[in-house]
Amino acid sequence: MSLNTFGRLFRVTTWGESHGPALGATVDGCPPGVALEPAMIQHWLDRRKPGQSKYTTQRREADAVRILSGVYEGRTTGTPIQLMIENTDQRSKDYGDIAQKFRPGHADITYFRKYGLRDPRGGGRASARETAARVAAGGVAREVLKALAPAMTITGCMVQMGPLAADRDQFDPAEVERNPFWCPDAASAAIWGEYLDRLRREGNSAGAVIEVTGSGVPAGLGAPVYGKLDADLAAAMMSINAVKGVEIGAGMAAAALTGTANADEIFMGNDGNPRFSSNHAGGILGGISSGQDVVVRFAVKPTSSILSPRRTITVAGEETEIVTKGRHDPCVGIRAVPVGEAMMACVLLDHLLLHRGQIGDGGGRIGAQ
Amino acid sequence: MSLNTFGRLFRVTTWGESHGPALGATVDGCPPGVALEPAMIQHWLDRRKPGQSKYTTQRREADAVRILSGVYEGRTTGTPIQLMIENTDQRSKDYGDIAQKFRPGHADITYFRKYGLRDPRGGGRASARETAARVAAGGVAREVLKALAPAMTITGCMVQMGPLAADRDQFDPAEVERNPFWCPDAASAAIWGEYLDRLRREGNSAGAVIEVTGSGVPAGLGAPVYGKLDADLAAAMMSINAVKGVEIGAGMAAAALTGTANADEIFMGNDGNPRFSSNHAGGILGGISSGQDVVVRFAVKPTSSILSPRRTITVAGEETEIVTKGRHDPCVGIRAVPVGEAMMACVLLDHLLLHRGQIGDGGGRIGAQ
Amino acid sequence: MSLNTFGRLFRVTTWGESHGPALGATVDGCPPGVALEPAMIQHWLDRRKPGQSKYTTQRREADAVRILSGVYEGRTTGTPIQLMIENTDQRSKDYGDIAQKFRPGHADITYFRKYGLRDPRGGGRASARETAARVAAGGVAREVLKALAPAMTITGCMVQMGPLAADRDQFDPAEVERNPFWCPDAASAAIWGEYLDRLRREGNSAGAVIEVTGSGVPAGLGAPVYGKLDADLAAAMMSINAVKGVEIGAGMAAAALTGTANADEIFMGNDGNPRFSSNHAGGILGGISSGQDVVVRFAVKPTSSILSPRRTITVAGEETEIVTKGRHDPCVGIRAVPVGEAMMACVLLDHLLLHRGQIGDGGGRIGAQ
Amino acid sequence: MSLNTFGRLFRVTTWGESHGPALGATVDGCPPGVALEPAMIQHWLDRRKPGQSKYTTQRREADAVRILSGVYEGRTTGTPIQLMIENTDQRSKDYGDIAQKFRPGHADITYFRKYGLRDPRGGGRASARETAARVAAGGVAREVLKALAPAMTITGCMVQMGPLAADRDQFDPAEVERNPFWCPDAASAAIWGEYLDRLRREGNSAGAVIEVTGSGVPAGLGAPVYGKLDADLAAAMMSINAVKGVEIGAGMAAAALTGTANADEIFMGNDGNPRFSSNHAGGILGGISSGQDVVVRFAVKPTSSILSPRRTITVAGEETEIVTKGRHDPCVGIRAVPVGEAMMACVLLDHLLLHRGQIGDGGGRIGAQ
Repeated sequence: MSLNTFGRLFRVTTWGESHGPALGATVDGCPPGVALEPAMIQHWLDRRKPGQSKYTTQRREADAVRILSGVYEGRTTGTPIQLMIENTDQRSKDYGDIAQKFRPGHADITYFRKYGLRDPRGGGRASARETAARVAAGGVAREVLKALAPAMTITGCMVQMGPLAADRDQFDPAEVERNPFWCPDAASAAIWGEYLDRLRREGNSAGAVIEVTGSGVPAGLGAPVYGKLDADLAAAMMSINAVKGVEIGAGMAAAALTGTANADEIFMGNDGNPRFSSNHAGGILGGISSGQDVVVRFAVKPTSSILSPRRTITVAGEETEIVTKGRHDPCVGIRAVPVGEAMMACVLLDHLLLHRGQIGDGGGRIGAQ
Repeated sequence: MSLNTFGRLFRVTTWGESHGPALGATVDGCPPGVALEPAMIQHWLDRRKPGQSKYTTQRREADAVRILSGVYEGRTTGTPIQLMIENTDQRSKDYGDIAQKFRPGHADITYFRKYGLRDPRGGGRASARETAARVAAGGVAREVLKALAPAMTITGCMVQMGPLAADRDQFDPAEVERNPFWCPDAASAAIWGEYLDRLRREGNSAGAVIEVTGSGVPAGLGAPVYGKLDADLAAAMMSINAVKGVEIGAGMAAAALTGTANADEIFMGNDGNPRFSSNHAGGILGGISSGQDVVVRFAVKPTSSILSPRRTITVAGEETEIVTKGRHDPCVGIRAVPVGEAMMACVLLDHLLLHRGQIGDGGGRIGAQ
Repeated sequence: MSLNTFGRLFRVTTWGESHGPALGATVDGCPPGVALEPAMIQHWLDRRKPGQSKYTTQRREADAVRILSGVYEGRTTGTPIQLMIENTDQRSKDYGDIAQKFRPGHADITYFRKYGLRDPRGGGRASARETAARVAAGGVAREVLKALAPAMTITGCMVQMGPLAADRDQFDPAEVERNPFWCPDAASAAIWGEYLDRLRREGNSAGAVIEVTGSGVPAGLGAPVYGKLDADLAAAMMSINAVKGVEIGAGMAAAALTGTANADEIFMGNDGNPRFSSNHAGGILGGISSGQDVVVRFAVKPTSSILSPRRTITVAGEETEIVTKGRHDPCVGIRAVPVGEAMMACVLLDHLLLHRGQIGDGGGRIGAQ
Repeated sequence: MSLNTFGRLFRVTTWGESHGPALGATVDGCPPGVALEPAMIQHWLDRRKPGQSKYTTQRREADAVRILSGVYEGRTTGTPIQLMIENTDQRSKDYGDIAQKFRPGHADITYFRKYGLRDPRGGGRASARETAARVAAGGVAREVLKALAPAMTITGCMVQMGPLAADRDQFDPAEVERNPFWCPDAASAAIWGEYLDRLRREGNSAGAVIEVTGSGVPAGLGAPVYGKLDADLAAAMMSINAVKGVEIGAGMAAAALTGTANADEIFMGNDGNPRFSSNHAGGILGGISSGQDVVVRFAVKPTSSILSPRRTITVAGEETEIVTKGRHDPCVGIRAVPVGEAMMACVLLDHLLLHRGQIGDGGGRIGAQ
């Protein structure tokens, strides 16, 4: 069921609205005995925090996480971990206009149609602020992964802003942390800055494509049919606010390939593990990880809350215009990078535990016979 | 958990291998009192059935469905419906080669790495034959939808084969059933036929993009955060064999749009319902249906089983080559069209029941106040 | 999965330890538009609160509940409701003894065996203090039931303390709120008081049997096989701390009856609904409610934390003795009454929503044809 | 959700009606590589099979199980196992009387109230015949347990028929398989035979109490709060047809004990594991197994289908009488013994996998520090 829960064994339930007193995540099923301090989680929250550059909302939130349960003397106990983040900068203002009008592209109208009422303050539950709770949960997942799969790394970057794709030939992983866009290509980062400045001045906004890569993922994670690793990753990424498309490996472009071009041929590596001539599969075959990098991309639509007037209707059914003032990100995709990483961390850990539950230490080893 | 189950209230568990005695679907949570005869389900299975044109595998399967439970005197009883399809054409041949070698792009290697053993006959559980069970379950979902949401239609088509996109200006819904590719554009269908003939002669295969549209979907279906309608659709489509990307509405292209271009402006329709200037959202905002068409696209990679030799390794870790003989679809995307429709039917029905469970007849009506 | 979650559509996840900063419940799937104020929940918490008579622990907790999310302007929004109760009286004392020794009858040893570590402060997650979160969630369920099934009432009482059963011929519902034991029989309440005084002086403790009755429960709630209403009630009650047995209707005594004696014969009532000659079934037949009172009983074992010395071992495997000091209930069954009521409220609401989801307004009406 | 599913990682979904063409179980999440042949499952089905003595229904069913999927060359593959049992002796007779009248104590009336229609043939889905599917699934669970926890045994017996309790001082495990009642006390078995003969001649029926014991259960299985081992066992047993009460260890009698009497004191055994002075806890503390025998008892009510006339009503709301002819067990409790064993096998395996998933090889060892 789990309308606000994701995961099967490592289960994360998020709660809270943009302008309520607090929001958070209840993490159930975490393995015991893992070292966990608030600072470990805070590290990841700080990467997502608003107001870090002129390209994100100027709302000032400390996003300070508290661990209310599930940790004793610095170690997880195996019982639910409650992570709470208090909202401190819910600027008191008049939401009357938004309360009566539906912002195009926003969830205002669908929440109203579904529930018959909604919390209009800052988008309520539909706010991207909910993703802070995911990042906190992802921080827990990362600490567990560090213990269970120390070779695994999960890193995200932005590979396209608006129509401007980064140049893959110029990718430098070290560059990702150096610019405000998590862009691995310094030249593109500069161009994107100018592009976004112009859009913001025009009261407009930009979309983006984010890529998240899991390296060192053990082979064998996933399951056939509905518990597929790629199906869970697709759901996880599509569940992030404003995401409209998800790709694994070659993604939509796989459709244009022929079978010979798409085949990732298999060889033996020097370490006794298989290696592949390419990674069109994005590290997943038949829903199960192959040991290659797990590569997921997702498209974030441009921010719907813009200063340019748009036609809309009121709750009463009258046609009107709306201009959305407030402190909105001109490109929500920027802050989606740590969110995508967090979702991948949660999904990979969940599948690691599921695999261990069903298979234990078993599985097939190439060349073992 | 549900590694082989999808859905929350309308739950489908599929079982069975390509070359076992039978496969099927266990459908739990179906509303009672709905008229259901095997012929209603057979109709949809026949559309997916192999061997209907020279462009699909020549394996001959009647794909005749039996209803073993959950129906009494032609009506569903509300208890589990067991749908069984017997395999009749599991050609007896030597699988020794495939049993020892891993086909590139196929799940052979990941199943082995996960389970330590696998059923090599026809791909076992990883075979696209499993999708017959989904189509059968989708047939049940359609009959229930007919009763609960009679205005709803769910139709799929192929919009791209290999690199060749159909021309949206030439779309004719009636054309979809007239060509072997479910292509809505007659001119493209002709070109695709030549393209696929050539690839097949070369021992090669083609990918495809499928689009499935739900019309007449009530506003309000879905839920925030993880039970989002688009997250569930993404998981459903990504769970289909060979799918590598899923898009909702504008999809990956949304990244390239500006906020002003992407906004679907809202007006009042003559019927008292909102109407929109465009449908970049694909009928879903904040994870909840808006009343617009729900539009999902997914990319199917080219068939991995091809006649061209590819480099690979054996279970013993020796490097070798493999040529996959057998009766394989040159473009598995063709038969994915009815599968995508079936998955959408299951997801929409599930969310209809979920909505009724949580909200009942409530929800917000524009202009009601 | 849901190790700390119960419910399917109305889902309650509890979190928090006895001596952590706070504990609470995350309630997901609540219908929207229901009036909800903290005072409505506080009412039920106050009934469970420790320190209300000399027969419960003297720990002083305000048990003040805060609603952190899911409610806007006094109405539920349909999104997750976070209920938090801060711990204020975690008396700082030396737990060194308990940290190294396992209290017989307590979860100390099994938590250690499972997790390899445990939070020894006040029993950590295994503390009966966790039940405050259940009572809070039950308070939400009651408000929703008030809206959806206004005729329903859920009332609990204690029907046995130690070996002393109350006299069913003397039951007076009004008496339940008048004595510290929720006993419906005034004479028994007096005897129980003396019995418990004596045990407490001896450093001993008493068990109890609680009975919870749901009246006005609509016919048709439940489901066959594993989603049975009685199976869910059994799990719900058995999940309460210290419970060792659960009965529906005649319960264990049903085994001693003959078929003729056990049959609840059926007649037509003046209101057009069936009535029954007796209620051995406890209102549930085949896992589905019949419209009769739903009657559940459960046995609570005597408090394990007692002042009398008991033989035990240490973490290091040394045999020793333990005396459990501290502020423990001499009969934990007393405070289990509001907990049992809360669990029944959650289960009945969950099944009401499930029924509405699968069946809607349908179902069979006697005499309708 | 899972109305017809039990288990979390080892998941069993049963399907099928008493008089449909077949019934069965879909087993998902089974570990791979476990030897499994139909004969291993048939062994357990044969113990439950009707018609084995004059004390069970004379319906003749071979109850021959077929494995339709999930097993390849005699080993489980890790994918869903479909177990099918065809119904062969659905005697064609007139069900007109039962179709219109509700049998007291039976699910006829509640199925009608819920679903608006029902399959009246042999009770449809509410028939105890459904338990054959559980026994088949339990047979799979036992083979997996044999591989993962070879020291574990699961054995059931009947400890009370009607008001006649077996004498615990005379228990002889070997006797259980020697009499038609699975009674461990030969003298009681003889008395029970006479008692049941008399009731049957009178057109009456008897209830029973069944006890199932799991020995060699590793310490640490279970989870706090809702995933408690005892909560899952309670749900599992209560979900069996006609069960009205479930007890763990001392059960309902725990209420009458004092804290000193109830305490299972702890010592060190010669094998380095803890041993206990008694087992009032039934092997479960705080929802987690202690390593002692897991002891569950459940009460089965007397068969509702009896030859003595009972008052009832018709679907049309008319008062009438009913006599239930047909081939009914005079004491359904007899065949509930293998069913209870099967349910315990499924629950213990599920928790073994869950534990392995969350904890791996960890956990606490007494004396390890």
